Amino acid sequence: MTSRRNFLQQVGLATAATSLLSSAKTPMTFIHHVLFWAKNPGNDAEKAQLLAALKQLGTLPMIQSAHVGRPIVTEFDKGATDGSYTFSVVLVFENATKESEYLYHPLHKKFIDDNKHLWGKVQVIDSELI
Amino acid sequence: MTSRRNFLQQVGLATAATSLLSSAKTPMTFIHHVLFWAKNPGNDAEKAQLLAALKQLGTLPMIQSAHVGRPIVTEFDKGATDGSYTFSVVLVFENATKESEYLYHPLHKKFIDDNKHLWGKVQVIDSELI
Repeated sequence: MTSRRNFLQQVGLATAATSLLSSAKTPMTFIHHVLFWAKNPGNDAEKAQLLAALKQLGTLPMIQSAHVGRPIVTEFDKGATDGSYTFSVVLVFENATKESEYLYHPLHKKFIDDNKHLWGKVQVIDSELI
Repeated sequence: MTSRRNFLQQVGLATAATSLLSSAKTPMTFIHHVLFWAKNPGNDAEKAQLLAALKQLGTLPMIQSAHVGRPIVTEFDKGATDGSYTFSVVLVFENATKESEYLYHPLHKKFIDDNKHLWGKVQVIDSELI
């Protein structure tokens, strides 16, 4: 019985591991992509403040995955790539409701109030899985 | 010894499960975002062909996560959102090398050759985690 119980425990853990593995490969259902152009691209202190605030924002719990990145322009796609932005923020949500929770969250509004003087332009691209 | 061995096996599986869980929450390191504007937005057959080809492309093995989506414009961000595109493709890679493998893969080149007559404009935004 001990060995049978251990076997079942191991199967249970292996099943949990498989389930986690497949969840990691699940298509991203709702994506909120925001490009920020710094108001003063030569001002490193301002860019550092904005970057820190964006990273902090990405830790809000209704966000499934977050990315704050810098522009990359590849040789392959250089003719079609916009690499002019300062920061790229990609947030993945389970659905539109979770994105809405994020957009109307007090800390998102506070982020905008505290940092909007740091960007000259923002572009949003939202998309929902087909 | 049997129970000790079983214990160690279980710890191993539990560790694997924990590792998978944290990998699912790992920030996305390299993002390749491509927006496609259909050449003939009123032609449903052409759009269906492009959509099917994009979804197929997203299954290539060096891609960590893939998303093919339609535009969403929220009330909150409507002043800053570009919802004019037809399809949004977001691919996540572990690093720039994996993206390069994808870009130069024969099936990516075949996708372009077979479908480039279906889009009027493409915009690429690549970003690497800071």
